[in-house]
Amino acid sequence: MIQNMTENQITLYIIKALKENKQKDLDAILDELQPYDIAQIYEDLPEKHRTRFLLHFNIDSLADLMEELSTEEQLDVLSKLGIEKTSKVLDEMDNDDVASMLHELSPEKMKILLSGMKKSESKIVQDIMNYPPETAGRLMTNRFVWIRDYFTVRDAVDKLKIFAEFAETINYLYVIDQERKLVGVVSYRDLLIAEPDEKIRNIMYERVLSVLDTIDQEEVARMIERYDFLAIPVVNEESMLMGIVTVDDIIDVVIQEATEDIEKLSASGKAIDFDTKSIVAAYRRLPWLILLLFIGVVSGSIISGYQKTLSLVVPLAYFMPMISGMTGNTGTQSLAVVVRGLSYNDLDKKAIFKLIMREFIVGFIIGLICGIIIAIIAFVWQGNPVLGFVVGSSLFLTLIIGTLAGTIIPIFLYRMNIDPAVASGPLITTLNDIISLFIYFGIATMFIEKLM
Amino acid sequence: MIQNMTENQITLYIIKALKENKQKDLDAILDELQPYDIAQIYEDLPEKHRTRFLLHFNIDSLADLMEELSTEEQLDVLSKLGIEKTSKVLDEMDNDDVASMLHELSPEKMKILLSGMKKSESKIVQDIMNYPPETAGRLMTNRFVWIRDYFTVRDAVDKLKIFAEFAETINYLYVIDQERKLVGVVSYRDLLIAEPDEKIRNIMYERVLSVLDTIDQEEVARMIERYDFLAIPVVNEESMLMGIVTVDDIIDVVIQEATEDIEKLSASGKAIDFDTKSIVAAYRRLPWLILLLFIGVVSGSIISGYQKTLSLVVPLAYFMPMISGMTGNTGTQSLAVVVRGLSYNDLDKKAIFKLIMREFIVGFIIGLICGIIIAIIAFVWQGNPVLGFVVGSSLFLTLIIGTLAGTIIPIFLYRMNIDPAVASGPLITTLNDIISLFIYFGIATMFIEKLM
Repeated sequence: MIQNMTENQITLYIIKALKENKQKDLDAILDELQPYDIAQIYEDLPEKHRTRFLLHFNIDSLADLMEELSTEEQLDVLSKLGIEKTSKVLDEMDNDDVASMLHELSPEKMKILLSGMKKSESKIVQDIMNYPPETAGRLMTNRFVWIRDYFTVRDAVDKLKIFAEFAETINYLYVIDQERKLVGVVSYRDLLIAEPDEKIRNIMYERVLSVLDTIDQEEVARMIERYDFLAIPVVNEESMLMGIVTVDDIIDVVIQEATEDIEKLSASGKAIDFDTKSIVAAYRRLPWLILLLFIGVVSGSIISGYQKTLSLVVPLAYFMPMISGMTGNTGTQSLAVVVRGLSYNDLDKKAIFKLIMREFIVGFIIGLICGIIIAIIAFVWQGNPVLGFVVGSSLFLTLIIGTLAGTIIPIFLYRMNIDPAVASGPLITTLNDIISLFIYFGIATMFIEKLM
Repeated sequence: MIQNMTENQITLYIIKALKENKQKDLDAILDELQPYDIAQIYEDLPEKHRTRFLLHFNIDSLADLMEELSTEEQLDVLSKLGIEKTSKVLDEMDNDDVASMLHELSPEKMKILLSGMKKSESKIVQDIMNYPPETAGRLMTNRFVWIRDYFTVRDAVDKLKIFAEFAETINYLYVIDQERKLVGVVSYRDLLIAEPDEKIRNIMYERVLSVLDTIDQEEVARMIERYDFLAIPVVNEESMLMGIVTVDDIIDVVIQEATEDIEKLSASGKAIDFDTKSIVAAYRRLPWLILLLFIGVVSGSIISGYQKTLSLVVPLAYFMPMISGMTGNTGTQSLAVVVRGLSYNDLDKKAIFKLIMREFIVGFIIGLICGIIIAIIAFVWQGNPVLGFVVGSSLFLTLIIGTLAGTIIPIFLYRMNIDPAVASGPLITTLNDIISLFIYFGIATMFIEKLM
């Protein structure tokens, strides 16, 4: 029945079942829904039905539901559940999800919630929170099944049966030795097709790729993306198995990193999406714009320095927006290549040199072609060959410099470990504006007598 | 041994083994490597060793290796393998990978390669190629194991054993009825913990989420991301199971879509990365820049239309770059929010209206604050209150319009199904340039007598 129902119909059906207290109907429908769907329905439910709805779930399902909600809604659910159930739900949730929820809370509230949890669970959560943000340690979960190297296939399957509900749904078992060091990996499929008495040691795959717990999350994403893994084990410096990072978390990382790249290019500020309120969005965008406003005043004062040149040859002003616009655009193009490239490549000195040389040549070619075109246009339009020369040669130079600025500045900031958000598109654009004005008016002033 | 070797050391070791023809050493080391690693090593190998290296692989491993290489290298490998082996390798490769390789070739070459393949395999590849690019049908593979609803757990495991090597490494089995309609799903883990005589029908999960074969790949990515699936089944309009899309392909989709978003913002042109040659990168970037050059000339002609105003009040020129720069920046910020949002949201009319209203208010707030600041600066700097008013009110208006342009233009293009690359950052910036010049000089001309 449910196969063909829309989310709206399901929600209405559930509200009806809640009102009429039809436990069975409710269980039947909830059993077929994914946690994500249940979360969507929960969000759609009127407030008055929510508490009763939550009562229908066991701890496991509540934990699944929690993992699909935003922090705000998570806290709302917990407040409806009461202290005792809260602790049990937190114990059941993936530790990385608990950690990222607690991370948003005040230290006092965090302490209260942690103190209700099982000691073993709260310790793991606290361990995760001790890792710096955006590291493998922060992403990892301990909801996986490990086995010992001396196990037989039968032992492994028996252990799996016990922990089936508990394990993340990936299809590997990681094998550790007596010191908890990671020594191998077997897949569920290997277990299915192997003889029950076969030793794990003999069927396991020994070259297990793993990541250090302190490594950046982008690096983890790169590993999983390259090797098409469903999960990757996380080890500490002694090669001890600490947890696993699963591919579903990595998709979120990839999306997050891409969004950060776009924020760098547009300086649109963090976390503005379709649901952000106007006043918040304006507040987040303003700091950049005000900074750029003042930089814009600097451009203005540069022009005012060349007031005499400008008032002698007013047509110089006609080409000002074109030159600064083109320089800004080419800088943004270079920036996009660098920002995106840095997400998926390591940059050693040799690679940096190669990239800068490449962009220099690109700037040279682009500058030459665009410079010649604009020189001809300026000459034909204003009938002044010197103006053509001034505009063309300025554009040639500014395009080379703009390209290089868009390349060198973000690399420099990246190497200096400065927050790369600083190397945003508008900043490069505005810097290139200033540079291009200096070059343009500088050249024009040199040729001022021939220009008039 | 191999655990602690770097890629370079492994490559050198392999070259040595190849030279000395030590088959066993080679097999031992290759057995422990992932296909991605083998592909990296293959790329590092000097040309003269490559053919001999390839001889060491069986068809299965060659297929795995192929899937990790670029199209160019794939064709190089195939030419080294000869016709007979080529057909076998293509038969073994994932159909979606074969399809995307063939897609790059000329129709003649494609025909030759397809004609060598098994009929059943080449038919599937051709079916995939019949789907439009970037749809679920293009991404799907048929390398998965399906079972019938009347099977027992034992039947299912037996089938899995036969097809173990063949199946993609995901941990679900999809269940179909006599008409090949998708009716359920069971996980490997369910099979491991169930009794052997249990019917699949009784343990399967009936509400299987699936996607239509003609659906956009972004929609598939959204499903997998939301539900944290490892794979999703693809069905046709009659609900018949056509294939599956796996999470590793989805990570590539997410990266590709993010890169496309960034290209939209920067108009950096398709497929420029750190390895692109200068001349190619310049060629890809030039079309946009030349278009923008001509649009820049349009700005110039607008200014020339206000030549009189400008020559009467030269200080107007000082604020020109600031106003056009700010308008361009705020437009890019809005564009970034929209472009990124469109990747992860559906936009109905109500949502569009809400978003445009939001951006209008944002533009109003930003415009008001920045306009007041610049009015004060202009007044203090030039000692002219009218100039302050002209500059401030112009900025106020252009920031509102710039914000709206950055919102409405990409949404309009998106709704018109026009290639969204057209709504790129530089275009919005340049359009905003032109608009801002009109407003600025328009207002200035209105107040020209008081300005002087």
